Formats: sequence, structure tokens, C-alpha cells
Amino acid sequence: MTKSYYRSSKSGRSLSINGVNYATCSSGTKYKNRDDLLLIVLDPGSHICGCFTLSTMPSAPVVWSKKNIKRANNLKQKTILLINAGNANAFTGVEGSIACEEKAMALANIFKCDKKNIFFASTGVIGEKLPYKKIIQHLNYLKENLSSSGLKAASNAILTTDLKSKIYTKKFKINDELFTISGFAKGSGMIFPNMATMLAFIFTDFAIDRETLSFFTKKAIGESFNRISVDGDTSTSDSVFVSTTNKKKLKVTRDQRPAALNAFYEEIKKAMVDLAKEIVMDGEGARKFIEISVKNAKSVARAKEICFSIANSLLVKTAIAGEDANWGRLVMAIGKTRINLKTEKIKIYMQDFLLCKNGEGVETVDNAKLSRALKKKKVAIVVDLAEGHKEFTSWTSDLTEDYIKINADYRS
Amino acid sequence: MTKSYYRSSKSGRSLSINGVNYATCSSGTKYKNRDDLLLIVLDPGSHICGCFTLSTMPSAPVVWSKKNIKRANNLKQKTILLINAGNANAFTGVEGSIACEEKAMALANIFKCDKKNIFFASTGVIGEKLPYKKIIQHLNYLKENLSSSGLKAASNAILTTDLKSKIYTKKFKINDELFTISGFAKGSGMIFPNMATMLAFIFTDFAIDRETLSFFTKKAIGESFNRISVDGDTSTSDSVFVSTTNKKKLKVTRDQRPAALNAFYEEIKKAMVDLAKEIVMDGEGARKFIEISVKNAKSVARAKEICFSIANSLLVKTAIAGEDANWGRLVMAIGKTRINLKTEKIKIYMQDFLLCKNGEGVETVDNAKLSRALKKKKVAIVVDLAEGHKEFTSWTSDLTEDYIKINADYRS
Repeated sequence: MTKSYYRSSKSGRSLSINGVNYATCSSGTKYKNRDDLLLIVLDPGSHICGCFTLSTMPSAPVVWSKKNIKRANNLKQKTILLINAGNANAFTGVEGSIACEEKAMALANIFKCDKKNIFFASTGVIGEKLPYKKIIQHLNYLKENLSSSGLKAASNAILTTDLKSKIYTKKFKINDELFTISGFAKGSGMIFPNMATMLAFIFTDFAIDRETLSFFTKKAIGESFNRISVDGDTSTSDSVFVSTTNKKKLKVTRDQRPAALNAFYEEIKKAMVDLAKEIVMDGEGARKFIEISVKNAKSVARAKEICFSIANSLLVKTAIAGEDANWGRLVMAIGKTRINLKTEKIKIYMQDFLLCKNGEGVETVDNAKLSRALKKKKVAIVVDLAEGHKEFTSWTSDLTEDYIKINADYRS
Repeated sequence: MTKSYYRSSKSGRSLSINGVNYATCSSGTKYKNRDDLLLIVLDPGSHICGCFTLSTMPSAPVVWSKKNIKRANNLKQKTILLINAGNANAFTGVEGSIACEEKAMALANIFKCDKKNIFFASTGVIGEKLPYKKIIQHLNYLKENLSSSGLKAASNAILTTDLKSKIYTKKFKINDELFTISGFAKGSGMIFPNMATMLAFIFTDFAIDRETLSFFTKKAIGESFNRISVDGDTSTSDSVFVSTTNKKKLKVTRDQRPAALNAFYEEIKKAMVDLAKEIVMDGEGARKFIEISVKNAKSVARAKEICFSIANSLLVKTAIAGEDANWGRLVMAIGKTRINLKTEKIKIYMQDFLLCKNGEGVETVDNAKLSRALKKKKVAIVVDLAEGHKEFTSWTSDLTEDYIKINADYRS
């Protein structure tokens, strides 16, 4: 089976966006023989929005970027993103903040911009001091090597334990105007030691006001990155940035504007959903893509809690890995949420086979057919609560022995 | 390294208790060549207390026993426990309740007792109909074979995927009177497919009023079984029963009574802690026993949430399996609770080594020594929040490849 079901929106070629320039190099701080430092420079006039980890132990770059993202950047100047892989600069005390401050001073000096136009993301080991002086030494080299066609190299430079880079790039038409959206992400479906971070960067030339872009960013994250479950762990460094160069203005009447904006929102969402699904499937050991939908719930909150209880259950994830239609584990995962439900109303489906209703198993299931269906790479679980009209969907991967192997052995 | 650290209270020999009789047999409902049906008959005059799963999808025997445990049993009659392994009688609809009703009618008839003196526990696959007629066929045989020395056989009959039986048996003295406490449990440190259930049965001859025994039962469960974390999943069938035959009266003055009762409480607690720790270490694939203590918290609730966030983290459990002092993962697990903490005050210890303070790693750790310490079978993690005086401790095991192997392959 191909992966086409979740990569349908991807073209074969990376598209550049006028006003978004990348440069990468090997910083010498962690990895050898690969680039691990990425500079992104956005032309003056760009807006930038972002969302960050909810961990109460955020890394220094998250603290820095979160503060800056709240106030508007200076539109007369360039906007800068500096990302390094291998060291998360998390739980590094005062020195972590100093590292950000020093990098920002150097960048502000080189690009003649305010510090509030500068954003950081770091991914890698927690608790090790960031050798920021080494990073600063490379900034002039990076400036000299900026290129708008560096998307592929950029996507590679931010990887840690990822098996492959994750890129999304697409041209889209709204009211006969052609726009571009490009993005890349890092993160693994099964999270790795000290490298749990999910980072994503999305760029477009679609001109839009900052408030709407910020609203779209948060909303689309709720429909994408916040729907993927890995192992229930939360990184200290998760960050998503969305930026527009504002170079291509939409020419529409006032009446046409809401529909056009909505079409743009759908493009952001598609980009994020695509990248989120790629993250789910990238984990070493992950062999199945699992979509869990909880339907007909009284509230989204109830549907979401049940959805994630299933997605985070080791017993469910190992059952799927074993291609076993073990719906008893789904019942267990629903029950442990302690949400009060009418047991006899619940229907549970796997791969469209109704496995349980009226508070008991369905006896007429064609087990041979079901067994074949479970061998597919994509597994769909549907829980129908029959108590309302709200729903929630989440995506996860199965849990295989390889996950443990890598996680136990990674740092040694 | 031996397991003596958590089995110190165990004598080599099972002790019988006057008035507690066991019989086992093979029911023919699931397993071959082993006993999987257990009858326990308590003499008239016995008290019985219990605690059950908080799952909102409880099995039929849990529903039955929970109802009966709320009202006092008839002290003039025998009290009966019937336990089967291999089929949980969970999510079996109306037929699940009928199975309990039919078994109870047969038992009430055989032992001339009220149905409210009858209790059930079932462990095994969820969603399969219980062949209760087969079970009822064996009740007369079991009655004929009751024996007070059947503790070991009883402990074996309730096992599912457990690797070994878990027994606790001890004589204890209070005010120069000799009493006995015996118990057994089933459950695996790493929970198995459809067999996630933890069952425990504890018996004593120490005479005590029902209300106090019930209070002690709940309190001791809070200090033992509710401190073990496995994979965060909750069974539909978890049940703990505590019973006294009331055959041995304490001869104390009114003034001596509180201290004597407290001494008895400590014995119940010891029995439960011992059995809980055995459950943690019994899982296939579990190689390490991990004790997590969160100290100096503002409240027990905060300490407990952080404790279980660490205990349930796959990244922490795989790090311990890999004998890696990866304290960054502890920081991650603390942070993901979203409890507001003063980061710079937190101290983290592994095997008594201080690894992090002042919001950053300690650089003077003797890594060779720490590495040796992590090779031990017992791993102690201490998180000092320095914000109050409350604490919580939980126990878990590491996560190895074998866990996944067994869980993915079990039913197939």
C-alpha cells in the first residue's frame, strides 16, 4: 500500500516563495557531516505567528519566541528565524537565556533589525548547555548563503532522530490569483529520548492581516498538530511558526473576502494536517497509521478525551501492531476516562466492521475478512457514543518492539 | 541482586486461617491442564469488604460484588467468593448479569445462604460470553474439596498471563496475641491484552468491626495498589477483597485499643504493599523495579499527579530499561502535567545522585559511579519540589521490547 492517502496534496518539487530565504550549515555543536543550523530570513513587511508547547518547563528559545510572538514585529525590517538541532537549550538555567540574548544581539547587528524581529527554535538533548558562541561564528556565513530555493536543505537541517524530512509545498488559486504555501516539520510518530520535539514552519505569500493569520494559525493547529498522539509525552520545545511575506495581495470585493479567507484557511489547514500525518508515520518502529474518530458525543471535550485515551493506550497500540481486532481494549480505554456513558448505546467499528453494540460483542462478524482488513497500513477506529452530535478525530501510530529498542538504546 | 527488598515479610510456608477454606478445579471454560476456577468459603461470622475498578465499563461480576459489598452480609451464614480466570465476563450485556444471577442461585442453594453473601470476580478476555453453566456444574465438586490449606492452589487458579503466583502470608503479634494474615493476588506489572485485571484477596482472623475493616481496606489500598502504575490503562475488572473470620478476639483495655488497631492496620498495609510490588515485578519484560517519590510538594494531589506522570511516561520507562540517567525526560514528564512549579527550586535525584538543581543540570556528577548504580534492579527516582511538606510515592517497572512482543502477539 502506498502512502498516497495522506500525501495527496504534495507535488514532487519544492516551491520557493519570494521573500523567504534559507541558509544551512554544520554548526559543529553536535552532529558531524550534516547541517544542523538553519537561518531563515523574511523580507520586510512579513507577518509571523506561532504556537508553543504547554509544558511548564519550556526551553529558553520557547520562552524567547513566545514573548516576541505576542508583540508585532517591526514591518520595516527583516524577520529572522534561527533553528538548531542536537541541543534543545532546555533546563539550562540562566545560561539558556544568555544564549538566546547573545544570538539575538549578533543577529540584530548583522541584519540591522530589532531583537523583537528575531525568533529561535532548538531541538535536541535537554539539560546540556548550548555552545552558542560556535553558533554565532557561523551567522555571517549563513547570511552570505541565503537562497530562496533552500527549502529541502532547511527541512533536513532541523531533523534529529527523524527518518526522513517532511515537506509540504503547493500552489493554490483563490479568485484566479496564484499563491504559494510551503512548510516543513520535524518530529517522530513515536517520540525519541530527549528529542521529543515537534517543530513546524509554514510560509506563504498570501497577504493577510496579522490578527487573522494568528487566528487561523491557532485554529489550524487545533485541527492538525493537536490531533496527533504519540506517546502522551509533551516536549519542552514544541513550536509552530506561520509566516506570510504579504507579497501577493488578494483582489476581491468586500463580499468575496470571507469566502477567499476561508479558502486560504483551508490551505493552511491542509499543510498542517499533511505535516502532522507525516510526523505520525515517521517514527522508527511505526508500521500503521491509526485514525480514531469518536462520533455523536455530547461535547467535543468528551469526544476528545475518549479519542486520546484510545490513542495513548499501549494496549490499543500493541493490538493494532499485532493486527488483532481486540475491541475489548477499546472498551477498556473508553472506560478508564471515567466519563459517564450509556454503555448499551455505544457502537465500536474497526475498518468499518461493527464489532460491538448493545453492551456486547457482535457475533456475526466475518473474522477472516476483518483479519485481512487489519493487515492494511491504515487502520480506522470509530466509536459512536449515540449521545449527541459532536465529534473528534485523532491520529496515531502503532507500537512495535522497535520503538522500545531505539528508546532504550538511543543515548548509550 | 535478590528480590529481598520487597519480600522481606514473606515466610517460606503458606499459613492457613481457621474458617477460610479454598477449593479449585479446571472449569473447562478456557484453559486446559490447569485449575481456573476457585471457590472460597468463609465461616459464618466473617466480615467482607472490597474496592473495585473505577472504570465506567465495569464487568458484570464487579457490578454484582460492588452492590453486595455495600450492605452487610448475613453473619449467621457462610460467605462465598467464586473466581474464574480466562473470561472477564465484561461487556457481555444482559447475559453477563444473567451469568452472575445463575451462579449465585446455584451457590445460595448449595451453601444455604442469601445471595447477598455471594461475591464474584472474573478475569480474562473482555467481550466473550461466560459459559456459566459449565462453571455451575463444578460447584458441588468444589464444595466437597474445600480445605484450609489450599492457599497456594488458590493463588495459582486465578492467574492469567502472570508468570508466577503472588502470595503473602504472615503471623503477627499484637499485645501478645498471635494472629494470621494471608493473601494472594494476580496482575502483571506490564499489563497484558484483555487480561489487564488486578485481583487481590486478603484474609485474617483478627476480630474487628466491619466499619473499621472497611476504612482500613480503603486506606491501605491507597497506600499500595493505587500506587502502582503499569501502563496507565485501567481494567474493567480490578477487585480487592479483604475479609476477617473474626475468630480471634483482641484482649485489650479501651486505652490500648487505638494502638492495637493501628498495629493491625500496618499489617494489612504491609500485605497489600508486598502484593502490589510483586505485581509490578511480574510483568513479562519487566527487568527493573522503579520507585518514584515526589517530595516537599504543596499538596498530595500535586505530588501524586507528577509521580504518575513520571511513572506512566514511556520515555522514562525506556530510559530506565536502557540504564540511562536521562533526567531530561523527568523534566519533560514533570512539565507536561502543566502544574505550575518554581523550576529553579526543583531537585532531581536518581539512585541518590543529585542530577539537577537551580533549573539546570549538575555538572559534577560522577558518571561512572552513576552508571554502575543504574545497573541495579531497583531504581529510585526522587523529585524534590521544595514548595511544601507533602509527598507521594509510586512504583512501576521499566519498559522493554518483550512487553511489546507479548502484547502484539498475545491473542494471535
